[in-house]
Amino acid sequence: MLTAIYLLAITAEAMTGALAAGRRNMDIFGVSVIAFVTALGGGTVRDMLLGHFPVAWTQHPAYLYLVLSAGLMTTLIAPGLHRLNRIFVVLDAMGLMAFSLIGCNVALSMHYPTDVVIISGVITGVCGGVLRDVFCNDTPLVFRRELYASVSLVTCSVFVFLRARGVNDDTNLAVSFLIGMALRALAIWRDWHLPTFSYKTKSE
Amino acid sequence: MLTAIYLLAITAEAMTGALAAGRRNMDIFGVSVIAFVTALGGGTVRDMLLGHFPVAWTQHPAYLYLVLSAGLMTTLIAPGLHRLNRIFVVLDAMGLMAFSLIGCNVALSMHYPTDVVIISGVITGVCGGVLRDVFCNDTPLVFRRELYASVSLVTCSVFVFLRARGVNDDTNLAVSFLIGMALRALAIWRDWHLPTFSYKTKSE
Amino acid sequence: MLTAIYLLAITAEAMTGALAAGRRNMDIFGVSVIAFVTALGGGTVRDMLLGHFPVAWTQHPAYLYLVLSAGLMTTLIAPGLHRLNRIFVVLDAMGLMAFSLIGCNVALSMHYPTDVVIISGVITGVCGGVLRDVFCNDTPLVFRRELYASVSLVTCSVFVFLRARGVNDDTNLAVSFLIGMALRALAIWRDWHLPTFSYKTKSE
Repeated sequence: MLTAIYLLAITAEAMTGALAAGRRNMDIFGVSVIAFVTALGGGTVRDMLLGHFPVAWTQHPAYLYLVLSAGLMTTLIAPGLHRLNRIFVVLDAMGLMAFSLIGCNVALSMHYPTDVVIISGVITGVCGGVLRDVFCNDTPLVFRRELYASVSLVTCSVFVFLRARGVNDDTNLAVSFLIGMALRALAIWRDWHLPTFSYKTKSE
Repeated sequence: MLTAIYLLAITAEAMTGALAAGRRNMDIFGVSVIAFVTALGGGTVRDMLLGHFPVAWTQHPAYLYLVLSAGLMTTLIAPGLHRLNRIFVVLDAMGLMAFSLIGCNVALSMHYPTDVVIISGVITGVCGGVLRDVFCNDTPLVFRRELYASVSLVTCSVFVFLRARGVNDDTNLAVSFLIGMALRALAIWRDWHLPTFSYKTKSE
Repeated sequence: MLTAIYLLAITAEAMTGALAAGRRNMDIFGVSVIAFVTALGGGTVRDMLLGHFPVAWTQHPAYLYLVLSAGLMTTLIAPGLHRLNRIFVVLDAMGLMAFSLIGCNVALSMHYPTDVVIISGVITGVCGGVLRDVFCNDTPLVFRRELYASVSLVTCSVFVFLRARGVNDDTNLAVSFLIGMALRALAIWRDWHLPTFSYKTKSE
């Protein structure tokens, strides 16, 4: 179940990566790289950080081909994609939750402390998008957008909390997932933002 | 002793990270990330590079909370901070030395060759600031500023040299630390710079 | 043989890194870092990604000194370098092939699946240049340039294909290397490009 959502999610993320590459007029190699980084970068950073070798996707080349195909296909169907905007938003939210919960489980399986489990989830959830923005030479969107990383943080915290309470894992995954989706929907619908910190200096 | 300085240092570095995030109008999630990356990024890069798993801060969640609190507190007290500029400069220099010497010791404990020990120190000392600047989409300051990374390099080299001469570790740490502080103070006071390399091309 | 080409290649790459740093008016520390990252960054990323510790250059400090000397020497001889442009192009192409084939061999020695072996080669070949551009705050050139990463991809694929066919390793290396060089030469001579994907949005 989480795997099915995960596959949908990396496909959707690869497509957003390809669109970002297209905005920078990259060639199809650049499109492939950005699609790959956006879809699989979060998990890669997590694995490298936790010392979780071999890195997940190196053991599942099929994910790789899925992501590259999705990226390249996007270059063909891009003109029609703006009509699917709403579906993208849903897929992206599902992906965020799936990535986050998978990230928590990887850290749990390595017996990291609770705080690190949550951070592992958030990193898996948002790092793909951060890398996409760094490679495309933008200030990462996630640091300035409506509630996004915070939703990942809440989802991971709920999951870890319920787990400590002894809730069965399948129930727990479903509940955390749905709470995350609801929160993300609310954030978009109500246009919730985190408070912004603006700091100006004369000399610096 | 080095630990106390280290805690002061990551607090100070987290605050400089938060201010940099504020200059880019990030939300408080972005502020937390940049504070975290600035304070703990150097050690993280070092651990990932040396294969030193688990990465240090994952075993000390307290550091994490210290860094995040410092970052968030900065958003509240920012308007008054320019008065503390001099204290920041001192804390930052102490942090640079503490990070550098800790970085050397990690590589030593893994039996890396001498050159790698020194590089490990410099990476621990300066990478936090480099990552902060990359995430904030600036050309890293450290590549263009007055003597900073070079001071880390001298400190690490002195430490490694005295160690090879058989100097007792505590004495050695103190001596290297003070030489580094003196050099950094001189560099700021006298406005010392490394020579700059400027290269212009017509076509490129 | 591959080692000799490798040494030539990291020297040439360090020099291109130094020139890029010079275009950003970096000081000689920045020049050293960018030279180092450009020459050894690809292999470092590969080793961190594959969990191949210790990272290669930490066991060969001589490479380090070679790269740093090449970077610093470049600041002295830069004004005359534009005359050597053609030699640079050849050295750079040789480096790309050498890096790519070495990257394949590292992944092979760790028993990664074929797809990962090829990716490991391409990462080793192009990541140094990508890191150089990210640190210099440019959109990576390799995502937009004439056939470059694709040549690495073809070279690695040929190598892996011939290896699966049972071709002797030395012959295989030579053949893959020469095919890559020929393709790169053709790409430059005929100004071959990959198709570019441009995507414009009004609102985003």
